[in-house]
Amino acid sequence: MIRKEKYNVGILGASGAVGQEMIKILKERNFPIAELRPIASARSAGKELDFNEEKFKFVEAADDAFEGLDIVLGAAENDIAERFAPAIVRSGAVFVDNSSAFRLKEDVPLVVPEINPEDVKWHKGIIANPNCTTTISLVAINALNALSPIEAIVASSYQATSGAGAAGPKELMAEVEAGLKGESYEPKVFQYQIAYNVIPQIGDEQYAGYTSEEMKMQNEGRRIMHLPELKVSCTCVRVPVIRSHSVSIVVRTKEKISVEDAKASIAKAPGARLVDDLPNRIYPMPLSTTDQDLVFVGRVREDLTCEKGLNIWCCGDQVRKGAATNCIQIAELVIA
Amino acid sequence: MIRKEKYNVGILGASGAVGQEMIKILKERNFPIAELRPIASARSAGKELDFNEEKFKFVEAADDAFEGLDIVLGAAENDIAERFAPAIVRSGAVFVDNSSAFRLKEDVPLVVPEINPEDVKWHKGIIANPNCTTTISLVAINALNALSPIEAIVASSYQATSGAGAAGPKELMAEVEAGLKGESYEPKVFQYQIAYNVIPQIGDEQYAGYTSEEMKMQNEGRRIMHLPELKVSCTCVRVPVIRSHSVSIVVRTKEKISVEDAKASIAKAPGARLVDDLPNRIYPMPLSTTDQDLVFVGRVREDLTCEKGLNIWCCGDQVRKGAATNCIQIAELVIA
Repeated sequence: MIRKEKYNVGILGASGAVGQEMIKILKERNFPIAELRPIASARSAGKELDFNEEKFKFVEAADDAFEGLDIVLGAAENDIAERFAPAIVRSGAVFVDNSSAFRLKEDVPLVVPEINPEDVKWHKGIIANPNCTTTISLVAINALNALSPIEAIVASSYQATSGAGAAGPKELMAEVEAGLKGESYEPKVFQYQIAYNVIPQIGDEQYAGYTSEEMKMQNEGRRIMHLPELKVSCTCVRVPVIRSHSVSIVVRTKEKISVEDAKASIAKAPGARLVDDLPNRIYPMPLSTTDQDLVFVGRVREDLTCEKGLNIWCCGDQVRKGAATNCIQIAELVIA
Repeated sequence: MIRKEKYNVGILGASGAVGQEMIKILKERNFPIAELRPIASARSAGKELDFNEEKFKFVEAADDAFEGLDIVLGAAENDIAERFAPAIVRSGAVFVDNSSAFRLKEDVPLVVPEINPEDVKWHKGIIANPNCTTTISLVAINALNALSPIEAIVASSYQATSGAGAAGPKELMAEVEAGLKGESYEPKVFQYQIAYNVIPQIGDEQYAGYTSEEMKMQNEGRRIMHLPELKVSCTCVRVPVIRSHSVSIVVRTKEKISVEDAKASIAKAPGARLVDDLPNRIYPMPLSTTDQDLVFVGRVREDLTCEKGLNIWCCGDQVRKGAATNCIQIAELVIA
């Protein structure tokens, strides 16, 4: 990428929850923007967006919508990302994509800036942003990998409704309101009612009884952490929370790491905040981690079933560090 | 215990959520009752209870409140259970207690009727009912132990607000209603707001960073399953659910158990129901397991981090199988 003072940035899927958050975060982080081009389906085309006291028009997604852009942030679903990736690359822009379409492609780097920033360098036009639960979990445990290589992870997630896009929290609240009125509500976004419930299915079956979502932490984790042998057993569960994901993790490392060393390394880890004082009721929670970028880590303790294991609890904002912020951090590396 | 046609049954803590459920279940199961004596604090004394078309008066808890009873079902907190246990035993009644006060006492059997019914026989006046999450989890996995001894369990729980008694769901609903009105609500039952949140603390710190609740599955599991070396790493988490607990479990056995064999044995296990068909969106959930007695088990699959491990998801009604029903099943064994 040619160094510039300011860059022309497109957002594909700009009207969705992640797209809207990207716009907010670009402004917050003073990303050097010349033109901001929100790109969305025909429904949004023509609408205007205020950004840094300028107005930018929504452009309809099409092969010629990317001309002149330096960076395109992808906040759309897989089919849209796949549909427009060739046009984006042809236009000369770097496509930083939040969908899962390119995450396991060998010629596409998959990047968490706190973990493998160097992988940005070898991109061939596309850089993939990892799955939200994967990013949050890996930022929490990456410091341990520096002390001793991580061999296995057992994770159970408590995933917020925001993971299904803006329609997720809306459905939760619609169910809550209907319930209080004694009315019924037919779920459209989730498989079943999510209010006052938990649903042990995110994604469809992919491998040996595991869902697509559950396989992401292993498949993406191997690429991000450069641990090709990493083994992960994951259970992904939707919970009636608005937007922060929580994960209960057991990490097994090659050598034993003491709780003390683990805490000290997490406390210094970029992107993580150690929040660990059980007697004073201090630990990460969805409500205390919403609308900020750090992954909070707590409840660090020895795994009582395995000498070389540690038990950890972490929470992070799914829309921000799990999606929008990580994409923009990648874009910052691209222009650095 | 002398065999009778009908028994005099007391319920200590009869006005609480578990006590009320016990009364309901005694009737449902046609427990052979001559006198039903609801025993509670002074606040409830004198009130009347309809049961099998008879009226029974609430009696104030006192040392002389247990005279003439054959069985006392304990639905009160530890301090009350400890305070009155000597008087109950002196009165000649068998005390089937749901508190955690006696669960680890060597001379008190700790019983899940589907797992260790034979332990009822050696009681010395007190039989303890296990922790709700422990009972639900062990009923789910006990069939595996018959195939090959269970060596270790990694569990992350999704525990309903009912675990804190009747005040738990009330607080959840009060927070939901306050939120919709834009009002604030000060949590009294849980450490923090539970609506739209999850709280990774149940009980206080007990051992090596684990809470009292988290240590129960290991300490109680060892006694119930007669596995003195059983190792359990547990993370107990409160979720905004009304009354069914869910648990994500990895079970490690001495020898490998195939998923097929595991499913077949769970399908036949007493107290459990195999509910496992991911492609058709069939798996246990809190809303589908509330107000019944079976532990639903699903998402059975190989642990991808360990050859001798299985991943399992289970749900059960915390107030019923987790507490009231299990106590009454124990009482049924006592009179059998």
